[in-house]
Amino acid sequence: MKPYAPGEQPPPGKFIKLNTNENPFPPPPAVVAAITAAASGPLNRYPDPMATSFRRAAADALGLPGPEWVLAGNGSDEILTILVRGFVGEGQSLRLPYPSYILYRTLADIQGASWEQVPFADDWQLPAAFGESREDLRLVLLPNPNSPSGTIVPPAQIKEIADSLDCPLVVDEAYVDFANENCLDLVTQNERVMVTRTLSKSYGLAGLRFGFLVAQPHIVAELTKIKDSYNCDMISIAAATAAMHSQDWLAEKVAALNVTRQRMAIELGEMGFETVPSHANFVWCTHPSGQHKAIYEYLKANQILVRYMEFPEWGDGLRISVGTDEQIDACLLMIRRFLNQNS
Amino acid sequence: MKPYAPGEQPPPGKFIKLNTNENPFPPPPAVVAAITAAASGPLNRYPDPMATSFRRAAADALGLPGPEWVLAGNGSDEILTILVRGFVGEGQSLRLPYPSYILYRTLADIQGASWEQVPFADDWQLPAAFGESREDLRLVLLPNPNSPSGTIVPPAQIKEIADSLDCPLVVDEAYVDFANENCLDLVTQNERVMVTRTLSKSYGLAGLRFGFLVAQPHIVAELTKIKDSYNCDMISIAAATAAMHSQDWLAEKVAALNVTRQRMAIELGEMGFETVPSHANFVWCTHPSGQHKAIYEYLKANQILVRYMEFPEWGDGLRISVGTDEQIDACLLMIRRFLNQNS
Repeated sequence: MKPYAPGEQPPPGKFIKLNTNENPFPPPPAVVAAITAAASGPLNRYPDPMATSFRRAAADALGLPGPEWVLAGNGSDEILTILVRGFVGEGQSLRLPYPSYILYRTLADIQGASWEQVPFADDWQLPAAFGESREDLRLVLLPNPNSPSGTIVPPAQIKEIADSLDCPLVVDEAYVDFANENCLDLVTQNERVMVTRTLSKSYGLAGLRFGFLVAQPHIVAELTKIKDSYNCDMISIAAATAAMHSQDWLAEKVAALNVTRQRMAIELGEMGFETVPSHANFVWCTHPSGQHKAIYEYLKANQILVRYMEFPEWGDGLRISVGTDEQIDACLLMIRRFLNQNS
Repeated sequence: MKPYAPGEQPPPGKFIKLNTNENPFPPPPAVVAAITAAASGPLNRYPDPMATSFRRAAADALGLPGPEWVLAGNGSDEILTILVRGFVGEGQSLRLPYPSYILYRTLADIQGASWEQVPFADDWQLPAAFGESREDLRLVLLPNPNSPSGTIVPPAQIKEIADSLDCPLVVDEAYVDFANENCLDLVTQNERVMVTRTLSKSYGLAGLRFGFLVAQPHIVAELTKIKDSYNCDMISIAAATAAMHSQDWLAEKVAALNVTRQRMAIELGEMGFETVPSHANFVWCTHPSGQHKAIYEYLKANQILVRYMEFPEWGDGLRISVGTDEQIDACLLMIRRFLNQNS
C-alpha cells in the first residue's frame, strides 16, 4: 500500500513555506488566550467527548439549526477517516474527482475498499459521470474548492449530483472560507449531503488539528459511535471554540489573502504562466516551458518551498500557497529570475 | 452496533470523580509550562507528523533502543484503532480476555471483524486457550494490568503466550506505571509483541489525549502508513515531551497513589468487601450483600462517582479509582454509611 505523502515540513523558520496551504498569519489572539487558560484547567480529567462548547460556537457562527448538526474531529482528516470507515466496507467503493485530494484513495486502500476516479473536464467542470449511481458505490468525495486547482463547483450543480446519487456525497470544504459560496444549505435540504471543514487553513491553526463535519443530526449520531470516545483534547476544544468566536479576524485575514491571491495570478500571468481562477488560499499554475520541477527545485534551493504536483496521465504543475505579501514577493522574484536564466 | 460507552463525565467540580481512573493530581508543572510556550508557537504551521521530540523523550525515559521504536497517537485509543485497522480485516478475528476493556470489541465491530473472549480463571489467571493459534485470528489484546480487576499477568507468562501465537499480541499497559513489571523487554525479544501506553492515567493528562505504541521499528513504519498524517497536534506533542521529562514527578505521584490504594483495599476489606490486589490506580471490589448498584447510586446521589460494572454471565462489582486521600476518605465514609443503613 502506498501511504499518503503530505507536503514537506522543514525545520521551522528556515524556509518560506508556500507548499501546504497554511495560513501565513498567526491564529486569532483569542485562540492563544484560550490555550493559555486551558493549560491551567483540569487536564487530569477527560475532555468533553462531544466538544459541546465547540459545537455550539460552530453552529452559531455558521447559522446551523443547532449543535447536533456538528461532529468535531482531530483534524478534518479524522472526519474523513470516520466517514470512510462508517460508509465504505471492504470490497465496496468510493468515488473522487481527478486530480484532487489523494488522501481519499489512501483511506480507501486502508479500508480494503476500491476507489474510482472521475476526471474533471478540461475547464475543471464535473462530468455527468460523477453523479451516476453504481451498485457498490458507497461514498462520493468532492473537495470544493478543489485542490490543486482552486476551482469551485457551484452548489446548484452539487445539489443535482447529490440528488442523482444513491449514496452520501461529502463536500470537503477545507478551503471554502476563501470562496464566496458553500454547501451548508444543501445539508439541510438533503440528508445525503455532508460538509467537512477544517481550522487548519483559514483560521491559521494547522498545528492544532481540528476539523468538523456538518451533517443531519441522525447521521452525526451514528458517526459518533465510530469515533474514538475522546477524539478531541481539552485544549484544542477550547482553542477551536475561541476560533469560532473570531469571525471578524477570519473575515479580515481572508480578505487580505484573497487580495494577494489576485496579485499572484496577475504576476504569474505576466511571466507566461497559465493560472486557474482560485477560490482557495493557493494558486495552481503551469508554464508553457513545462519546467515545473526545475522551478520547484530552484525555489527550494533558495529556501522557498512550493508544491510540485504530478498527476499521472494528466500532467504536472505548481501549487503555490498564498503567503504574506513579502513571502509572495520573494517567491515571484525567484521564479522570474529562474525564467530569465532558463529561457 | 452498540457503541463503546465511556464513564460518566459530570460538569467539573461538582462531583468527586472516582469512576474513570483519572489521576487526582494536576499534571507536572513542566507540562503546563510547555503548553503555555507552545501557545505562542507557530500554530499556523502543521505539526511534526512523527512527533519526533516526543519519541526521543519516550525512548530515553523508557530505555528503548531508539525513537524509531515509538509511534505517537491521539490517546492510546487511537493507537488501538490503528492496530485493529492494520491487522484485522473484515471477517477476521481478534481475541481479548474477559472481563476486560470493552472497547476492543467495539473496534472489532466497527471493522466488521469478529471477536473472541477468553474468560479469566477465577483467580484472574489466563487459561492456556488465550495463547492458542487459530486460522482467522489476527490480533490478541491483553490489558495488563487488567481492568476492572487491576490484576497483572507476569511478563514471563506473556512471553510464553506470544511465542505460541501466530499473530501479534498487544499488551495494553495503560496502568503499568502503577505496577512493578512491564513488557517492554518482550518487545525487543519478539516482533509480535507490542505495548501500548497512555499519558491519561499516571501522568495526569487525560484531557490531553496522548498515547503511544512501543513496537519493533519495521512495525512502527508500517503502522505509520495507516495513521492520519498529522495525528498529534503541536501543543500535545510539546506537552507529552515535557511529561516524559518529568519522571521524578511521576515516581512521586505513583508512590503516593499506591499507598492510598493499599489503604483502600484494607478499609474496604474491613467493611466486608472482597478486593483483588491491584497493580493499577483503581480497586475492584465486590460485597457479599451484592448491593453494588445500590451503593453506586447512593454514592452518586451524594456526588461521588464510582464505576458500577456489570459483565454478563460473570457478575458485577464496583471499580473505584484511587483519588486523593481526602476523596477516598469521603467515598469510604459514604460506603460505610450505606452499609450501616442497609444491612
